[in-house]
Amino acid sequence: MIKKPAATHKAIRQWMADHEKQLLSMLQQMIQEPSVQMNESGIQHKTARWLEDLDFTVDMWEPGGDELFNHHAFLSRREHFKGSPNVVGVRKGEGKGKSILLNGHIDVVPEGDLSDWAEDPYAGLVKDGKIYGRGATDMKGGNAAMLFALQAISSLEIPIKGDVIFHSVIEEESGGVGTLAAILRGYTADAALIPEPTNMKIFPKQQGSMWFRLKVKGKSAHGGTSYEGINAILKALEVIQALERLEKVRNDRVTDPLFAKAPIPLPINVGVIEGGEWPSSVPDLVKVEGRVGISPEETVQEAQEEFTRAIRAMEAEDKWFKDHPVEIEWFGARWLPGSIDVNHPFMEILTEQYKGITGKSPEVEAAPWGTDGGIITAVGSTPSVVFGPGITRMAHQANEYIEIEKVRQCAEVIASTIIEWCNVEERKGRSHT
Amino acid sequence: MIKKPAATHKAIRQWMADHEKQLLSMLQQMIQEPSVQMNESGIQHKTARWLEDLDFTVDMWEPGGDELFNHHAFLSRREHFKGSPNVVGVRKGEGKGKSILLNGHIDVVPEGDLSDWAEDPYAGLVKDGKIYGRGATDMKGGNAAMLFALQAISSLEIPIKGDVIFHSVIEEESGGVGTLAAILRGYTADAALIPEPTNMKIFPKQQGSMWFRLKVKGKSAHGGTSYEGINAILKALEVIQALERLEKVRNDRVTDPLFAKAPIPLPINVGVIEGGEWPSSVPDLVKVEGRVGISPEETVQEAQEEFTRAIRAMEAEDKWFKDHPVEIEWFGARWLPGSIDVNHPFMEILTEQYKGITGKSPEVEAAPWGTDGGIITAVGSTPSVVFGPGITRMAHQANEYIEIEKVRQCAEVIASTIIEWCNVEERKGRSHT
Repeated sequence: MIKKPAATHKAIRQWMADHEKQLLSMLQQMIQEPSVQMNESGIQHKTARWLEDLDFTVDMWEPGGDELFNHHAFLSRREHFKGSPNVVGVRKGEGKGKSILLNGHIDVVPEGDLSDWAEDPYAGLVKDGKIYGRGATDMKGGNAAMLFALQAISSLEIPIKGDVIFHSVIEEESGGVGTLAAILRGYTADAALIPEPTNMKIFPKQQGSMWFRLKVKGKSAHGGTSYEGINAILKALEVIQALERLEKVRNDRVTDPLFAKAPIPLPINVGVIEGGEWPSSVPDLVKVEGRVGISPEETVQEAQEEFTRAIRAMEAEDKWFKDHPVEIEWFGARWLPGSIDVNHPFMEILTEQYKGITGKSPEVEAAPWGTDGGIITAVGSTPSVVFGPGITRMAHQANEYIEIEKVRQCAEVIASTIIEWCNVEERKGRSHT
Repeated sequence: MIKKPAATHKAIRQWMADHEKQLLSMLQQMIQEPSVQMNESGIQHKTARWLEDLDFTVDMWEPGGDELFNHHAFLSRREHFKGSPNVVGVRKGEGKGKSILLNGHIDVVPEGDLSDWAEDPYAGLVKDGKIYGRGATDMKGGNAAMLFALQAISSLEIPIKGDVIFHSVIEEESGGVGTLAAILRGYTADAALIPEPTNMKIFPKQQGSMWFRLKVKGKSAHGGTSYEGINAILKALEVIQALERLEKVRNDRVTDPLFAKAPIPLPINVGVIEGGEWPSSVPDLVKVEGRVGISPEETVQEAQEEFTRAIRAMEAEDKWFKDHPVEIEWFGARWLPGSIDVNHPFMEILTEQYKGITGKSPEVEAAPWGTDGGIITAVGSTPSVVFGPGITRMAHQANEYIEIEKVRQCAEVIASTIIEWCNVEERKGRSHT
């Protein structure tokens, strides 16, 4: 048993250096599970086994029930989650320490156009210190870092006073149902860490986001007399241009220095377009889907209202839109924005560990995207910080990869943070600062 | 047996007035067959029966064979035509008259967004002298007019010297394989009439057209850092704008007075768009499909080259397009442009019959769209004219309909034209004037 902090940190570093192959193998096994929506079971069973090996009490269940489905933060296009289990592991501490929630999602977005990938996105290819594959960065690297940190603590038998709760959740990419279900099942803590890909920056503030679906109407006609119809694709282009203008207006308003480095702090992304059935017919319907960033300074409702106003404004200028209003639907996914104090004690400990291990001051910024931290904070009353090894730029991209050394370094910071935070003497019950 | 022309025409008119219910019933049965691509068999069996009832020798076959598939005018995305029969009927004349080819396609385009239709598009609803349904105008009305004309001639036992060949073809909406197969099987004539929806105008010149597919590349990224990707939907928007400019350039060149009444003589129609998989990912691929009108004054190849130049021109202005050229594919369907002399004897006879029956001079224009007349002229060496009862504006639209009185009147003109043309004494073999 190691007692002195400096010795502890040195032992962790050494253990991690000695067991790098174990980290790599775990990460590879994670990537080899193509855990897109509806295909999460394989990786969850593996995660449950890894947690059991660390003496965690594992709870695996398929989210459901009225409390979940009727919750105001519930949003999903799924009618059930059969075959898509959530996993939570709990390791009770020795007592009187602060508890920590480690949250990671195991769902990945689809791989996109396969021809853009140099290798099979689910092969887990390792090359030049990087591991490639869908989810490497978002966020299997982060999940591996958390488990590796816990493996080090366990192997070195470092005493921990507070409870460690590990969320391995589904559905982060499409509404956060997995985290919401875990929170509603009572798995909260004094602070949460979410190792989404921040490139080792610390994000105490998180942009929220939500998905929209627009239906743009046209009037069909024969393509040879296209002037007798109204082309829904050309009308959809006007709508997309209106969204580009709205994005500018919304972003010109952002002055928070935590957002200073993001070229577009609150992006409106047009992600999907689909319309028309026949090349020589004028199409009469186009569907456009995308996501809108929500500022921590506004409510979901305010953001929706401004979006709706921008679409409705086109109706004043254009008789077609007046007579055939664009349909707006909020569907599928929403991440609540989150914001916690940059001086929260958990932030201080994390920052200190980061400095000690890397020798540098961390960059502290606002997250350019939503995470389940919004739900953890708003519904679970657990202040949460996002800090992880991947690069945001890699997320959702072809040839997604993560640097293995970054995963290891992040694991070291997480291990030290768990040790410091969970050994803070708990005096007056749970703190929700 | 009726001998004098005036008496003949009067008898036809009377017979048609007496048998209007028969016309309506036939048209209704046609519309009730949802003869979209791959579902043509039902209507073809009905058509074969109608032709047999008129003493036509019927040939029904599924197009195929090397000669067809290797023909330079062959274009289809289908690998076979099993279950999609062509029908041709031949009624030999009494001899020494000119032959006529009556050509109609039985395929219809898909019905589009059902919610735009007031009624079931395949019910064949009759209301206020109109019959509604997919294909009513394009071109079941024309097909019914031809059959009704032949029924009148047959019932009245009007002698016909030349052969009458009836093409009931598949695949006009997607490449003309049905007509090409019929031509290659030897079913040609001295002149052809195609009752596509011209609103009773006479079209001696036909715009050609062809389908294109563009693949526009982007670079995927997480929607929250959309600025790190390249949105293929926004790039596709630029491509579509380039096509709008090209359409203007091409149409500014058109000076032929036959095109004078078309606001856009040679439309470029963007008919289908599809891209992206996930609302919060930046999409990396968008597919755009459409049709380009081909002038009778240019070749298919010239039109393709100009189109390609317009797309490639964007590469000089935009590094992304330079490094990721838009892929261009010509696929699925192509209608050859056609042009015959406005003073061809068949044109003179048709014009004369039109005047005699309607009391008005016909409007003579260029077709704003391609028909199988291009193949009939170019491959079958059969001069062809397009003249039919429907309104182009109705084709490919929701709530497509045709006026029953127009179908009847067109049938009258067709019957008289058959009688006049096929009784022209054939002196020196087939004429290809």
